[in-house]
Amino acid sequence: MIRGVLLDLAGVIYDGDHTLPGAIDAVARLRAAELPLRFITNTTRKTKQALLQRLAGFGLDINEGELFTPASAARDWLRQHDAAPVLVVHPNLESEFEGIPARKSRAVVVGDAGEAFDYGHLNAAFRALVDGAALIALAKNRTFKDDDGKLSLDAGAFVTALEYASGHTALVLGKPSPDFFAGALASMECRPEDAVMVGDDAEADVAGALRAGLGRAVLVRTGKYRGGDETRFEPHPTATVDDLAAAADWILANRS
Amino acid sequence: MIRGVLLDLAGVIYDGDHTLPGAIDAVARLRAAELPLRFITNTTRKTKQALLQRLAGFGLDINEGELFTPASAARDWLRQHDAAPVLVVHPNLESEFEGIPARKSRAVVVGDAGEAFDYGHLNAAFRALVDGAALIALAKNRTFKDDDGKLSLDAGAFVTALEYASGHTALVLGKPSPDFFAGALASMECRPEDAVMVGDDAEADVAGALRAGLGRAVLVRTGKYRGGDETRFEPHPTATVDDLAAAADWILANRS
Repeated sequence: MIRGVLLDLAGVIYDGDHTLPGAIDAVARLRAAELPLRFITNTTRKTKQALLQRLAGFGLDINEGELFTPASAARDWLRQHDAAPVLVVHPNLESEFEGIPARKSRAVVVGDAGEAFDYGHLNAAFRALVDGAALIALAKNRTFKDDDGKLSLDAGAFVTALEYASGHTALVLGKPSPDFFAGALASMECRPEDAVMVGDDAEADVAGALRAGLGRAVLVRTGKYRGGDETRFEPHPTATVDDLAAAADWILANRS
Repeated sequence: MIRGVLLDLAGVIYDGDHTLPGAIDAVARLRAAELPLRFITNTTRKTKQALLQRLAGFGLDINEGELFTPASAARDWLRQHDAAPVLVVHPNLESEFEGIPARKSRAVVVGDAGEAFDYGHLNAAFRALVDGAALIALAKNRTFKDDDGKLSLDAGAFVTALEYASGHTALVLGKPSPDFFAGALASMECRPEDAVMVGDDAEADVAGALRAGLGRAVLVRTGKYRGGDETRFEPHPTATVDDLAAAADWILANRS
């Protein structure tokens, strides 16, 4: 039985500044079928509030509790560990970390910083690691599909750079972290084996969800998908379909 | 028998803008003992000519044929493979690659680019890799001792970032590449088993030399050395001594 659906955002619902054909309707059909939905993204260039506004602009109204972002998970981690962040994040994301007091314990927090991935920021983060700070990756994605339609370097490349130089191993908070999937599933009281994940990233979304114990994961051939992705990472997708509209068809057909 | 000596530069002969105590005299003593010497550096922030001038300013006169740099090795590689470079290097090093014509085949060449390690340069390099360019690392050192005395991110971090995102594996031309050591040894007709390497980098200089087949490698406790380095990488140094002066003593005592 499928009793809960997790959907990725970029490359599944929208691509750049437009929604993907049939995507908004697909969400509506899943909702009409009374399937609980959560949206789970590794996007770290916008705050949660900015993401919600963007989705509303696309005609997709979701509430705060339905959207799971790595930055929220990072704030939780910092609070639990009584640590202050050393940020290597996009300027748009900095406000997510406002109001955290200076603390003796520190953690380098790396998101998709874009142009802020410069030597000064990265070397300051490296020196904090040498001084004993922890290393938190909001995500470790290798690439993302940029506004010009080409692949660009994502946060994972820079997380790996810091790991290599410092000898630290990053704690990854976004997908494919099992805790990240688990948090979204818990919020809709759905057991992993009863859930399906839909994403365009064969590694973090699909293989990650299956490794985290989800019963099914559907890869869509939109967004950053490139030919051959369905066999590039283990485990392989439960199904590979053209887009979210086809994924909704698949979910509704395989619901029970 | 020791019949040839390879010396690292930064952290062994000099540190920042000054020579290390006893280093110039140690070179003179090795020369007086008629031991063939070569200087083998992973420094990629200066051209070979600029390095020779710097050494002359320290009172160390060596000729072009005695100094081995990764940039020279990269020019050789590009010529042999009929490839044009996509440079991610320090502005000071760009002149080493002047005059290479545009070619269909390309290779991303990564050195210690300093502030030029920015998102624009790195993403352009990544996109060239996606388009089929080869990946050449002048060096893959994790860290270097910066002018302020602290460790800073070296080229290896950014090479690793590009490897992670692109799926390419870099060809490393500087130390610990066996070919790099071999080129320096061949120029003085010294068999690897008769050679000794002296360096402050336990990984690239010392373990690298021993893996490349050199008979001996001496780690000095100057430059980037940190306590415990002598047991951090395999194989361990043949000897660990305070500085180049002590290394020269060791070499002269263990010559035969």
